[in-house]
Amino acid sequence: MISKALIAEFEALLGKENVLSEEIDRHSYSFDAAVLESCVPALVLFPTKTEQLGVIVKKCYDEGLHITVRGSGSNLSGGTIPDDKDSVVIATGKLNKILEINEEDLYAVVEPGVVTEQFANQVRTKGLFYPPDPGSQSISTIGGNIAENAGGLRGLKYGVTKDYVMGLEFYDFEGQLVKTGSRTVKCVTGYNLAGMMIGSEGTLGLISKAILKLVPPPKASKAMMAIFDDVQKASEAVAGIIAAHVVPCTLEFLDHATINYVEEDKKIGLPKDADALLLIEVDGHPGQVADETEIVERVLKACGATAIHIAQNEEEKNKIWLGRRNALPALARLRPTTVLEDATVPRSKIPAMVKALNEIAKKYNVQMGTFGHAGDGNLHPTILCDRRDHEEFVRVEAAVDEIFNVALELGGTLSGEHGIGTAKAKWLEKETSRGTIMFSRRLRRAIDPKGLFNTQKLVGV
Amino acid sequence: MISKALIAEFEALLGKENVLSEEIDRHSYSFDAAVLESCVPALVLFPTKTEQLGVIVKKCYDEGLHITVRGSGSNLSGGTIPDDKDSVVIATGKLNKILEINEEDLYAVVEPGVVTEQFANQVRTKGLFYPPDPGSQSISTIGGNIAENAGGLRGLKYGVTKDYVMGLEFYDFEGQLVKTGSRTVKCVTGYNLAGMMIGSEGTLGLISKAILKLVPPPKASKAMMAIFDDVQKASEAVAGIIAAHVVPCTLEFLDHATINYVEEDKKIGLPKDADALLLIEVDGHPGQVADETEIVERVLKACGATAIHIAQNEEEKNKIWLGRRNALPALARLRPTTVLEDATVPRSKIPAMVKALNEIAKKYNVQMGTFGHAGDGNLHPTILCDRRDHEEFVRVEAAVDEIFNVALELGGTLSGEHGIGTAKAKWLEKETSRGTIMFSRRLRRAIDPKGLFNTQKLVGV
Repeated sequence: MISKALIAEFEALLGKENVLSEEIDRHSYSFDAAVLESCVPALVLFPTKTEQLGVIVKKCYDEGLHITVRGSGSNLSGGTIPDDKDSVVIATGKLNKILEINEEDLYAVVEPGVVTEQFANQVRTKGLFYPPDPGSQSISTIGGNIAENAGGLRGLKYGVTKDYVMGLEFYDFEGQLVKTGSRTVKCVTGYNLAGMMIGSEGTLGLISKAILKLVPPPKASKAMMAIFDDVQKASEAVAGIIAAHVVPCTLEFLDHATINYVEEDKKIGLPKDADALLLIEVDGHPGQVADETEIVERVLKACGATAIHIAQNEEEKNKIWLGRRNALPALARLRPTTVLEDATVPRSKIPAMVKALNEIAKKYNVQMGTFGHAGDGNLHPTILCDRRDHEEFVRVEAAVDEIFNVALELGGTLSGEHGIGTAKAKWLEKETSRGTIMFSRRLRRAIDPKGLFNTQKLVGV
Repeated sequence: MISKALIAEFEALLGKENVLSEEIDRHSYSFDAAVLESCVPALVLFPTKTEQLGVIVKKCYDEGLHITVRGSGSNLSGGTIPDDKDSVVIATGKLNKILEINEEDLYAVVEPGVVTEQFANQVRTKGLFYPPDPGSQSISTIGGNIAENAGGLRGLKYGVTKDYVMGLEFYDFEGQLVKTGSRTVKCVTGYNLAGMMIGSEGTLGLISKAILKLVPPPKASKAMMAIFDDVQKASEAVAGIIAAHVVPCTLEFLDHATINYVEEDKKIGLPKDADALLLIEVDGHPGQVADETEIVERVLKACGATAIHIAQNEEEKNKIWLGRRNALPALARLRPTTVLEDATVPRSKIPAMVKALNEIAKKYNVQMGTFGHAGDGNLHPTILCDRRDHEEFVRVEAAVDEIFNVALELGGTLSGEHGIGTAKAKWLEKETSRGTIMFSRRLRRAIDPKGLFNTQKLVGV
């Protein structure tokens, strides 16, 4: 129980409007985008200045209150579900200032609550480019992206959030400010604490500031759509493109089920009889784009694409990407519950993974659509179901378990970009080792000695 | 004191030929490339199988012996100088197998003792590219590169070692194997322990295996040399090239002193009256290389280059790089002691940094040549002196202190790529914060509870 006196202290510090203590207000902070039990926190705080993070964390820690930091709650692994009903949620949405965009030195400095897409747009107006583009970018925050090491469509060529964090500032459990990294391209001053914080899911401290790398934008790009009558041929084409030393900025996959759900929902002219689609975009120097378009076309034909559309203008390009953008919304509309997975395999194992996914869907009789970032081996098998139907959900969970097993057997990983949270914690040891779990817990106990930072997430305490 | 019984145990485990206990054999492991006091270890061990690392570390830890892991000892910050005369050096030179080069999925798996250049050459024979190229690459090891987060000439465009580590395996103090990262492009399974290990200078565990990212090689490149009669104009050209959105693969700088020392030593035809040289290489698609060459030439002229040589063939390109490759050897030959610094500033601050370096050399009357990776703000002011001359060395140390002060005032960092080791530990708090030091020590105590892993390095214990 949080005392009225403590609530009053927080109200004095942050302003009454930035402290939510009424139950009706707190409900929205009890869940995130994962299919997991919700938990209503005792208090929600909205700091408006980064310094307040240090004060808040110290106060909560002294009182023994669990702390969950929340950006927009768009993560898919339960990373922002509060630990227990006495938890405090620290929402970063009002720490949303872009402090600097440096055009000479190609970096930006931002507060954690800045929305990813808004930031990317601001950067674009300065003639620069911030590549990470998680699916939730229109609502996700940079702080959340860092805590989850968010990926996205451009991961294949441009990397993920971790590849753009040059430095961080964060507050530890005592409210002390920790600084790591620099505004310089190279920096080896002290431990790579920024590297450690990335993907730590709110378990090690409260990020207050990030220095992000920017790059010059590509000068040209070209989008293509290839239609396949056999999903295996499509997945072989993915491996073939990389083997030809072309690294597209995006190389996306839609299976037969997804194509049909999208087309029924949106009527955008997708080929409903196709077994699979590849959506490909290459970018860079105009000469490179021309050469790579030709090479990709050659590989697609050699792998048996039945048709290839190359966008001739911006409108045609947008049309190609419309199908991909609608994949998840169209699937999510079908049934009450959407279980979106992200087990990931080395690129060359995509054909084997796609085959296995189809077999698993049949074996457990679950409704599955698969789409995703085929170029980096990061597919999103998506199971449509109703969680309230116990018999069905048992089959769904068995199917998910088998997906993880297959990914690991193929030399892959449990999670490409969604995180472990509470959703996959039980699987962690199977991919890594007992030593890894022990080491991670030792690390965590040192940084959070009372076990109050998002306690159940990642490796538990 | 290490007992004879323990030595016999190590001999039984590793073979007599892989245990150096005679003083005459141990001397070579008492120093590295930093200008610091040496310390002869009690024992040097050469494991030949990675599993032996786990056994050795447990045995040493149980006995309370300090452990320093050593690749080739080429680091410049004292990272491989043993802690005390009872220390055990674990030399990784015989763990030198390249386990896999995967051409389909663009990664390699290596043991820690693989020599960087030999690895890069092997990768090249497969038609792929491993970009990190620290100055010591012909002798440095991948394990050492990871422990120091080694940089190099290509850092500007291609990044540093940290940008190529996809996964690691390492042994903790109990000899337990920890696995982190994956063969997949995206992986968020568990803490980013690989990120934490990078640059940790042998203080957190013993790296046994690394999964490294490979990329397709650029299809073309072009090297240029620009001559300036004013060092300020040269440094303004550096900032101008980046501002024109050209990111060369290398953008190197030689000052007047360095030009002359190299020319006297090597007679390769460098312009001895030049105040500064820029050596530039752009790479990528042939069309991009042509465009970028033109843009760079335009910026160089606008900034007042008195002459620009563009290499027309491989021979001319090699000639351009000969000067840069000989910079450090030529300087090092002049006096008994070479103090090679790497304070780094944001790129746009290069003009101010170069000005300050010249003033510092004059103020303290020290012999200094400056060269380095101007494109990423990572210059190497190099002071030539004689450490045995106390009066001179006091001035050298004062000059180095002032270099650090200026770098920090310009928003830079103490170390771009050489590491903190023992050489710069006292400066760390000034760049970061008290909270950073406390946090780092807390982390370290948890991972190395007895304080035996390369104890004095980085943040102390």
